[in-house]
Amino acid sequence: MTSNSARRPGDSKELVGVGVLGGSGYNGAELLRYLSVHPRVDLLWVTANTKVGERIDAVLPNLRGFVEGSFVSLEEAKNRLGEVDSVFVSLPHNESQQVIPSLAETSPKVVFIDMGGDFRTNDPAGYRRFYGSEHAAASWLPRFVYGFTEYNRKLLVGAKLIANPGCFATTLNLSLAPLAQAGKLHGDVFVVGMTGSSGSGNKPLQTTHHPERATNVRSYKVLVHQHLLEVEAFLRTLSSQKFRIHFVPQSGPFARGIFTTVFTPQVGVEGLEQIYQSAYGGEALVSVMRGSPDLRWVQGTPRSVLGVDGEADRGVVFCVTDNLGKGAAGQAIQNFNLALGFPETEGLLLPGGFV
Amino acid sequence: MTSNSARRPGDSKELVGVGVLGGSGYNGAELLRYLSVHPRVDLLWVTANTKVGERIDAVLPNLRGFVEGSFVSLEEAKNRLGEVDSVFVSLPHNESQQVIPSLAETSPKVVFIDMGGDFRTNDPAGYRRFYGSEHAAASWLPRFVYGFTEYNRKLLVGAKLIANPGCFATTLNLSLAPLAQAGKLHGDVFVVGMTGSSGSGNKPLQTTHHPERATNVRSYKVLVHQHLLEVEAFLRTLSSQKFRIHFVPQSGPFARGIFTTVFTPQVGVEGLEQIYQSAYGGEALVSVMRGSPDLRWVQGTPRSVLGVDGEADRGVVFCVTDNLGKGAAGQAIQNFNLALGFPETEGLLLPGGFV
Amino acid sequence: MTSNSARRPGDSKELVGVGVLGGSGYNGAELLRYLSVHPRVDLLWVTANTKVGERIDAVLPNLRGFVEGSFVSLEEAKNRLGEVDSVFVSLPHNESQQVIPSLAETSPKVVFIDMGGDFRTNDPAGYRRFYGSEHAAASWLPRFVYGFTEYNRKLLVGAKLIANPGCFATTLNLSLAPLAQAGKLHGDVFVVGMTGSSGSGNKPLQTTHHPERATNVRSYKVLVHQHLLEVEAFLRTLSSQKFRIHFVPQSGPFARGIFTTVFTPQVGVEGLEQIYQSAYGGEALVSVMRGSPDLRWVQGTPRSVLGVDGEADRGVVFCVTDNLGKGAAGQAIQNFNLALGFPETEGLLLPGGFV
Amino acid sequence: MTSNSARRPGDSKELVGVGVLGGSGYNGAELLRYLSVHPRVDLLWVTANTKVGERIDAVLPNLRGFVEGSFVSLEEAKNRLGEVDSVFVSLPHNESQQVIPSLAETSPKVVFIDMGGDFRTNDPAGYRRFYGSEHAAASWLPRFVYGFTEYNRKLLVGAKLIANPGCFATTLNLSLAPLAQAGKLHGDVFVVGMTGSSGSGNKPLQTTHHPERATNVRSYKVLVHQHLLEVEAFLRTLSSQKFRIHFVPQSGPFARGIFTTVFTPQVGVEGLEQIYQSAYGGEALVSVMRGSPDLRWVQGTPRSVLGVDGEADRGVVFCVTDNLGKGAAGQAIQNFNLALGFPETEGLLLPGGFV
Repeated sequence: MTSNSARRPGDSKELVGVGVLGGSGYNGAELLRYLSVHPRVDLLWVTANTKVGERIDAVLPNLRGFVEGSFVSLEEAKNRLGEVDSVFVSLPHNESQQVIPSLAETSPKVVFIDMGGDFRTNDPAGYRRFYGSEHAAASWLPRFVYGFTEYNRKLLVGAKLIANPGCFATTLNLSLAPLAQAGKLHGDVFVVGMTGSSGSGNKPLQTTHHPERATNVRSYKVLVHQHLLEVEAFLRTLSSQKFRIHFVPQSGPFARGIFTTVFTPQVGVEGLEQIYQSAYGGEALVSVMRGSPDLRWVQGTPRSVLGVDGEADRGVVFCVTDNLGKGAAGQAIQNFNLALGFPETEGLLLPGGFV
Repeated sequence: MTSNSARRPGDSKELVGVGVLGGSGYNGAELLRYLSVHPRVDLLWVTANTKVGERIDAVLPNLRGFVEGSFVSLEEAKNRLGEVDSVFVSLPHNESQQVIPSLAETSPKVVFIDMGGDFRTNDPAGYRRFYGSEHAAASWLPRFVYGFTEYNRKLLVGAKLIANPGCFATTLNLSLAPLAQAGKLHGDVFVVGMTGSSGSGNKPLQTTHHPERATNVRSYKVLVHQHLLEVEAFLRTLSSQKFRIHFVPQSGPFARGIFTTVFTPQVGVEGLEQIYQSAYGGEALVSVMRGSPDLRWVQGTPRSVLGVDGEADRGVVFCVTDNLGKGAAGQAIQNFNLALGFPETEGLLLPGGFV
Repeated sequence: MTSNSARRPGDSKELVGVGVLGGSGYNGAELLRYLSVHPRVDLLWVTANTKVGERIDAVLPNLRGFVEGSFVSLEEAKNRLGEVDSVFVSLPHNESQQVIPSLAETSPKVVFIDMGGDFRTNDPAGYRRFYGSEHAAASWLPRFVYGFTEYNRKLLVGAKLIANPGCFATTLNLSLAPLAQAGKLHGDVFVVGMTGSSGSGNKPLQTTHHPERATNVRSYKVLVHQHLLEVEAFLRTLSSQKFRIHFVPQSGPFARGIFTTVFTPQVGVEGLEQIYQSAYGGEALVSVMRGSPDLRWVQGTPRSVLGVDGEADRGVVFCVTDNLGKGAAGQAIQNFNLALGFPETEGLLLPGGFV
Repeated sequence: MTSNSARRPGDSKELVGVGVLGGSGYNGAELLRYLSVHPRVDLLWVTANTKVGERIDAVLPNLRGFVEGSFVSLEEAKNRLGEVDSVFVSLPHNESQQVIPSLAETSPKVVFIDMGGDFRTNDPAGYRRFYGSEHAAASWLPRFVYGFTEYNRKLLVGAKLIANPGCFATTLNLSLAPLAQAGKLHGDVFVVGMTGSSGSGNKPLQTTHHPERATNVRSYKVLVHQHLLEVEAFLRTLSSQKFRIHFVPQSGPFARGIFTTVFTPQVGVEGLEQIYQSAYGGEALVSVMRGSPDLRWVQGTPRSVLGVDGEADRGVVFCVTDNLGKGAAGQAIQNFNLALGFPETEGLLLPGGFV
């Protein structure tokens, strides 16, 4: 289904069959962008609820010349499950839990990578509290590996059921996990994170209406964003210290990316540099620097940059992440590569523009 | 209803009662902004179909401290028609024609200023062609004065029924009328006009969805924009020469304003300067300059700037207009002032910011 | 010098003569915008170092029809000091201290309102630390009133020497002063503030170069922004509790406005509402709401909005301010009105647009 | 010099040595982005006048992990000319003509691809008229092949001296060449083109100062843009009909991309579709559609999209191009591939994001 032109000349490796459930939303579209040039992927079918039968590259004109074929129905995807080795799931909250268990039951060898919020913790009560409904497949929760690649790499190799972290969760995980590991995450933790409008999805809303967003800043879900559920759950696997995250999500006037700020009133900039270099020094997709990174450095890419700044006795940690890149599709590809046995960065080593 | 704080100390003139039909859309909101500081206006009621009972300054927080009270129903407005001297109508296409005739019939002394497209020409067939439906009050069309203030000033003094021009129409009128008057509008006329997203109204659409609009440019309604109906009708009152306008509307990545470009292959820059200075030299809200104006000079204001540029034997005419300002609410206030006998610029002499 | 057209018909009050030192920067330009429609102001001269002799409305085309005349030299301003009752000073840091003392010495009846950072505290050592140079007129520091209008109103009535707060300082003052007064400002205080590009002034820099700023977010002067000097000095006049502000300034991809976030880990949302309503309940230019305000509500206006949000036992305080409006020129006009004996909001009651 | 990580595992083809003169400007930076993942390129040195000795990935942080090493001096580049098979030249106008001839004289086997305006026509008088100075190497002009890939492909295979088209020129060439070939380019031709701010380069200017550009539109170099020189020269090789292009360049509030509009008052939309499909039907990097393309479809990519719209007897042609992509670095890589004997799209088949 992927156009031949999208594959580099000389690529003659064995391919794995891939299907996508939900390919017309922004996360799904970004995933298709990466899959279309992944040297090991044979993209076999893509569903899109409301676009069945429409050409993929008519709905997503950026993919002209890269992806052929049309969106199929969920029904057809189910019938063609046998063709694929891996399925990416980019469905709205609450839908993955209706779909994945039965598919995984019948096809236990297929690798499922869920990009939604349904399987990210083993905490059905927390799910109810943050997502507002009873989990329909609670017994499946413990079977999923949480796909925070840089920390769960070992668990992800060969995994069949992967819950890909949320966009804000990715940047909070990247920012807070090293502190937790270093025993520096305790007490009140103060975090501000600003996201671009693509984080709200492709359905037009008043808060993403251009005239009202174009020069605006506002906060929302103050202290109660649902990604706190998975972040706190994960961090507690790293540290037994008590902490309470005060997280203020904000909407900024740009389309892509997340910029987060974490205060470390008791860790100075030198200490921070040591902690974060030790955590990410060897990473291909995460880098660490002194001072503040620019958000634009990661827009359109699967990379994150952490910056540490401050004084001798107190500091601040910044993290920039593309909500659709490392915060969604990029990390999903990392996890796919690990699960399928490919090099972790396969298909991801594309630099973004300077402007 | 207007807050006292909104009226300057010392203003002790007699006020006229004003009502607004449709005050929660962008044109209506901008109109309320001007009305709230107009020294001769007593704002008595404002309708908003879907917001009846909601505080105006809750729906439009920019008006906190300037407008008190809540949106009322159309029913209540009808019952309170006797309180007002003038009614501004900012309803969707097709609705004004359902509402104004019966109100005007029963209250012939009230000045109605329709900001929609229903009564801008005496051409029901054209209306059907461009707006896609039969006009429901065609016999009322000839009773309306077309509110292109700078050219129809005499007709507007004391008028009771005024059809305020559309936003693109305003800038096209300003750009083309002087040429028509000078006998220089004939043959093929080429015009490109770019508008901001507020021109599409306050209802979220895919084309005004921030992630898809924020850095985008595209064209739409190519050669067939409905404002051509009123522009061509008006221009034909100024000139009997044959002309054909090729107008390409475009959507730009900004919230407010219109930038138009008109080619004059047979009129050089000196000739243009003469023509436009002669047309607008004495205007308070329209100015003329050599070279290109900046769109931002008029954003948030009721003013337009025309620029003439080019060479000795060929030229280009630019016009910048705020689609909500001079292109809608500003011109409506000009026309209101003329109809009610106030100085034309009353309530409009507010400068915009430099940035 | 102000054009007649800029003054409303019927305004026949006695005017005061006003001069401006530094009228071509963004703060100065915004000041001229307000002055041009202030009903009590007769604008007599405006200097601009590099633009002497150029028409003001050629340099600032938004003021066409509102301000006449040309920029003059500092020399000429000095010679014409006798004509004015008040002088606004919008010069770069370090320059006001060279200019104001000698002018104020010779013309002790003139009201000087300095919009720069030179006279905002009585702390020459702090000045050296934050601004990097020795203060050239330290003995004048105690003679200035700090122009945080809402708290220093009594001192401002009739004052002759006023130091107008900085833009970030204004929004930090508004956010933190009520907490200090309520005895709730102690220990570590965490603040993030994002500013638009106009906050960096009108001289092009790499960090305000459009291709690199248009979709970017970054932090700068992390924990060490110079406005902390005046904010801490002022807050210490309200409370003797110990506190340490951790302030992270950020650059956002918009032109105007500041959005700040303050964490209150020990004050819940109800308590916050009480504290801020009690502080600002009667203010004309500062309002308080539940939840997050939108930055765009104040862009282009002299108003600030505070929002309180959170849970029963912890909260967050937001503040939106236009850095050129309430954060500079707007507050300067408030202070001018108080010093000259006019109603505090004279010339400031103009609503902004909804979009 | 290119980091190993930037080359895909398994790429074992023979590499060619490449040097870059001027790698820190926006065109140069975009070129490095493409070169860093080009499977046949061994990037050996990059100059940057003012950055000699600075790490490339410190100046261009988007290239961290993709390009190693530091910028070198022009002197060093000259000394190491023997190492390379091809040199990209991204210097300001007027500089290439000082540098390339002597280098090419001494190293006649090296392929030089000049991205500046110095060698795009064989018309020294035109150069003087549009660029304002005498050409310093006029005798070299006829030796360069004009790198409009889609039309000059045959001349580019094996070429040693290539003049890459300008950004506006690329989109005008793409839009007008098919008309010229079809005998439909005659008389007055009306074109409007809007460019993003990166087209002005990386040096901050008042017109690219964020506060003044962020929501602005203006025109510049009206009817006299220097790219007309190369466009008219090239079009005259396709057609002997007389035509006169009226081209209005405009600055838009976005960072990347060009949107152009061409009127065809005598060619209807069906005719246009035939003409453009026939011209570009088989192209990998240029596509043709009915209606208007969206600019964002090509931002960040080496692709252009043409759209044809209109009525039976008249039409409009749109073209969207990334000024840094197909309008500069992308086309330079196409030409490099042709000159060196690689597949034309080698290293260029990367899709952009949907948003």
